[in-house]
Amino acid sequence: MNAQLLQVVSEPLPASRKVYKSGSLHEGLRVPMREIELHPSAGEAPLTVYDPSGPYTDPAVTIDINQGLPRTRAAWIGARGDVESYAGRQVTPLDNGLAAGAKAAPQFPVRREPLRARGRAAVTQLAYARAGIITAEMEYVALRENTGGGGRAGTGAADGNAWGACIPDYVTPEFVRAEVAAGRAIIPANVNHPESEPMIIGRNFLVKINANIGNSAVTSSTAEEVDKLVWAIRWGADTVMDLSTGRNIHTIREWILRNSPVPIGTVPIYQALEKAGGVAEELSWEIFRDTLIEQAEQGVDYFTIHAGVRLPYIPLTVGRVTGIVSRGGSIMAKWCLAHHRESFLYEQFEEICEICRAYDVSFSLGDGLRPGSIADANDAAQFAELETLGELTRVAWRHDCQVMIEGPGHVPMHKIKENMDKQLAACGEAPFYTLGPLTTDIAPGYDHITSAIGAAMIGWFGTAMLCYVTPKEHLGLPDRNDVKTGVITYKIAAHAADLAKGHPGARARDDALSRARFDFRWQDQFNLALDPDTACAFHDATLPKEGHKVAHFCSMCGPKFCSMRISHEVRAEARAQGMREMAARFRAGGSELYVPAPAPPER
Amino acid sequence: MNAQLLQVVSEPLPASRKVYKSGSLHEGLRVPMREIELHPSAGEAPLTVYDPSGPYTDPAVTIDINQGLPRTRAAWIGARGDVESYAGRQVTPLDNGLAAGAKAAPQFPVRREPLRARGRAAVTQLAYARAGIITAEMEYVALRENTGGGGRAGTGAADGNAWGACIPDYVTPEFVRAEVAAGRAIIPANVNHPESEPMIIGRNFLVKINANIGNSAVTSSTAEEVDKLVWAIRWGADTVMDLSTGRNIHTIREWILRNSPVPIGTVPIYQALEKAGGVAEELSWEIFRDTLIEQAEQGVDYFTIHAGVRLPYIPLTVGRVTGIVSRGGSIMAKWCLAHHRESFLYEQFEEICEICRAYDVSFSLGDGLRPGSIADANDAAQFAELETLGELTRVAWRHDCQVMIEGPGHVPMHKIKENMDKQLAACGEAPFYTLGPLTTDIAPGYDHITSAIGAAMIGWFGTAMLCYVTPKEHLGLPDRNDVKTGVITYKIAAHAADLAKGHPGARARDDALSRARFDFRWQDQFNLALDPDTACAFHDATLPKEGHKVAHFCSMCGPKFCSMRISHEVRAEARAQGMREMAARFRAGGSELYVPAPAPPER
Repeated sequence: MNAQLLQVVSEPLPASRKVYKSGSLHEGLRVPMREIELHPSAGEAPLTVYDPSGPYTDPAVTIDINQGLPRTRAAWIGARGDVESYAGRQVTPLDNGLAAGAKAAPQFPVRREPLRARGRAAVTQLAYARAGIITAEMEYVALRENTGGGGRAGTGAADGNAWGACIPDYVTPEFVRAEVAAGRAIIPANVNHPESEPMIIGRNFLVKINANIGNSAVTSSTAEEVDKLVWAIRWGADTVMDLSTGRNIHTIREWILRNSPVPIGTVPIYQALEKAGGVAEELSWEIFRDTLIEQAEQGVDYFTIHAGVRLPYIPLTVGRVTGIVSRGGSIMAKWCLAHHRESFLYEQFEEICEICRAYDVSFSLGDGLRPGSIADANDAAQFAELETLGELTRVAWRHDCQVMIEGPGHVPMHKIKENMDKQLAACGEAPFYTLGPLTTDIAPGYDHITSAIGAAMIGWFGTAMLCYVTPKEHLGLPDRNDVKTGVITYKIAAHAADLAKGHPGARARDDALSRARFDFRWQDQFNLALDPDTACAFHDATLPKEGHKVAHFCSMCGPKFCSMRISHEVRAEARAQGMREMAARFRAGGSELYVPAPAPPER
Repeated sequence: MNAQLLQVVSEPLPASRKVYKSGSLHEGLRVPMREIELHPSAGEAPLTVYDPSGPYTDPAVTIDINQGLPRTRAAWIGARGDVESYAGRQVTPLDNGLAAGAKAAPQFPVRREPLRARGRAAVTQLAYARAGIITAEMEYVALRENTGGGGRAGTGAADGNAWGACIPDYVTPEFVRAEVAAGRAIIPANVNHPESEPMIIGRNFLVKINANIGNSAVTSSTAEEVDKLVWAIRWGADTVMDLSTGRNIHTIREWILRNSPVPIGTVPIYQALEKAGGVAEELSWEIFRDTLIEQAEQGVDYFTIHAGVRLPYIPLTVGRVTGIVSRGGSIMAKWCLAHHRESFLYEQFEEICEICRAYDVSFSLGDGLRPGSIADANDAAQFAELETLGELTRVAWRHDCQVMIEGPGHVPMHKIKENMDKQLAACGEAPFYTLGPLTTDIAPGYDHITSAIGAAMIGWFGTAMLCYVTPKEHLGLPDRNDVKTGVITYKIAAHAADLAKGHPGARARDDALSRARFDFRWQDQFNLALDPDTACAFHDATLPKEGHKVAHFCSMCGPKFCSMRISHEVRAEARAQGMREMAARFRAGGSELYVPAPAPPER
């Protein structure tokens, strides 16, 4: 496995160098960023960009998948003095969906005792924030959010419409603390995932993206899933959800967590259902609780919990075109109907909070009743559940638990903003985390695109994290290429949202790339792209020679027609003719920018 | 060439059948539509969709590229009695950018004399509309816009926000006439392109898309370009622009026009520049005028004319990050500076109108100063030009010429609506025709996606036609695959816009596909997709067996977890338990949809 993985992931992106920034409150913080070197002719400093790819892109770090990543946060967690290690739950073959001994994937070689809160202590970032404590995690994300130096330097005046978000020019550690304390942002950071590089999810920060990986009963292996993780973060995934449902689910998750520098989310009901033999009716609170403990001990950073799928809401979905399309939602709906009882997730929600509080597992309150088609968007079932998610948010907050809220799904453009507005109102500004939404149902095979439209818009309106959709959505399990396409597509959506919100510094990369384009610095244009490899390959498809990388044209127009080339000549000529003087004359002529058209002749 | 082309294009899409609707005002109209057959278990009538693919997808028509398509409109044009045929301009080697005899591509085998208006007659659809005449073209597009039966049947109540557009439930021929008369819509239909199937561009109709094809000096051949045309319309392009700039430009255009059922647009300045030896300064009104006549005689349906690039505006572009990025715009800017004179396109605009009026070539007033980067969006240069395009619109209207207005380009999301609003105000509601816009600059290789976001939004806001952007934008000339990706991506954007505008009937396809999805009619799901081939291939990548096409799961979740399957069980169970009764009881309980959460325990 290793050899294959290492080959793929252990090198930086083209012209890129990993750099680290340190803080002032906490000693020894090393916040990773990526510097993209430009051609000397640019006369520009390297461009620094946000970098969730972890140690895999730092040649100074020796990667050993069997050892896992450095456990940087262990010291910070230990220093707070509020956790204890303990024997932990015994892993059983059932955790892997296996009869004992059968077909097991190789275990992760290192086993450590888990940590949990000592006594009744709350070890969540929210608890610390409320207590006025700026944790190392908070300072870390403050430095990280200011990637590129922070502030609006080089990008001109503030320019955007943030729809009520309050994005500061410079993110201070205190600002991070205050946002976490207010519940407007979360830092998913399980005490048992010390390998993670802290990141923040909130609408006053950069818009983040999540990539889903995970095997299913039908296909894929452990090695493939770890490879997908590293591949997803290489291209920019800020968190990864392991949605495995097949065999070896516990083992796969362990390999993923020990090798993941980004927060890992899961949907525990999937594993609980495996333990219940795949029969929803056989689920119980005991099985579910056991699964939460199991995953919290492993280090899962956030749990999707579909506690908003309440018995009384199920009738509201009967007339839908596509019923219930959330897997977790449909499992719980089935359980509720079978027992004709209120959901145990809803009834035991306070107990779930106690568990999350003891490990700092953040909630991702699942939208089990999200619409699965344009026809079902913004319906009574969806919004009934959203109100309940708001109630549950307040319950979780009382337990010092961090919370974000999952959102749809399939929504036509004119109904997207209503989702955001209702979520902000119902859930007290807890971060919104949406899947797309897809803006039409008619393009299976292209749902990364149908949903990127909705994702960019809802990100602009205030969604804090966008869950990617790959080209395989509705059709099959994404492979490596699909993961990359999904991630790049969602980086586009998130960045377009940051630009439209007027996020300070967001435009720096657009401007650097546009200058490279105008200057015919082809190599810089590729290196500054979200996907340098594809940009270069597309260029080389028609103009493969090295000389063409400095040519003042591309194959699109050819040398004679290139508008960029002509525009340079225009500019040079304009300057030669004393354009300033001309412009002044023009303005002097009565500032008549819009010179009246000549009188029309008689017809 | 033929064999290769025929192999590609002469079959209908899967499960599809070409049908024709006839009218009542004009005899013999055969308006093409595509019926998609559904599986008998659906119990649904075939879904009828808009179909610009022409005779190529009708097995009843024998395609012969050397003969060209049937000249359906010839009779209609002749019947109006206001055109005459004449010898036409002599084609010279210079028209093909060639020394005589050298390297010429094969000529189109059939040569006919061109038509033009008799005397001072205006033969434009606008002139007829103003005179109260409902032409065959108008009735044709009325029938076509009602594809699927018209009206809101089956899609429930009106649902959308049309931002001031007035979209009728049913499009009548009189409505079409009135919209054309008002200048709010155009029907590009040169009297010398009788092979075209009329279509309409206006914001009170379905949003249309354009695909650009064309060779450049660097790459591609005649055969490839005709193939790209047929390929582009197969996937849904409503018009095609031939942007060829290399050799054989006249010949390629002739092959394209004679085989195109969709309107063809061009940018005549490209060919004029070829005739001027590629030296912008050598351009003249005489060369340009000659080129207009040449192309009008061939049958080009709309001309991009960059007459808004005026001398006084050029200084406004000097401080830009990416200068002037429109090829036509930069050519004209260079000419203006070199001669220090006002643009001849602007000065001779009335003469251009006279030519367009005599053949019914529609104007596509080019945005030569459109922004080429996020940094340059909505700047003074862009909006100065837009005001001039408004002036020119009014001039063209006085000459009975049809007009649409080209728009940007690169625009962050928060500045998109301003473009639409200013265009409507400045240009008297003449149809807007935008290139994207791209919502970020940082993703070369994925600019179909960066721009689909902007295109969907501006389409929703009122843009009548969206010019596609392919993955090769900024990098190279699109090949066949890029053309398909660009077209499908823009069909998504246009359809998402139609849905959000609340276009009657737009949702029918989404709903049919969603029902197929929920019913596990996999084959119907593929057949209803914009790209059935890709949808099926993606599904089969993990579940290739025929049996899986009727399976109640896909590889995404596997059989045990499929939310759709579970949702069916939920629905069945809910019905068994008398869900209606339950729902009634629920409502009876005080209509308390949002049951109060249990009181929070003390902490």
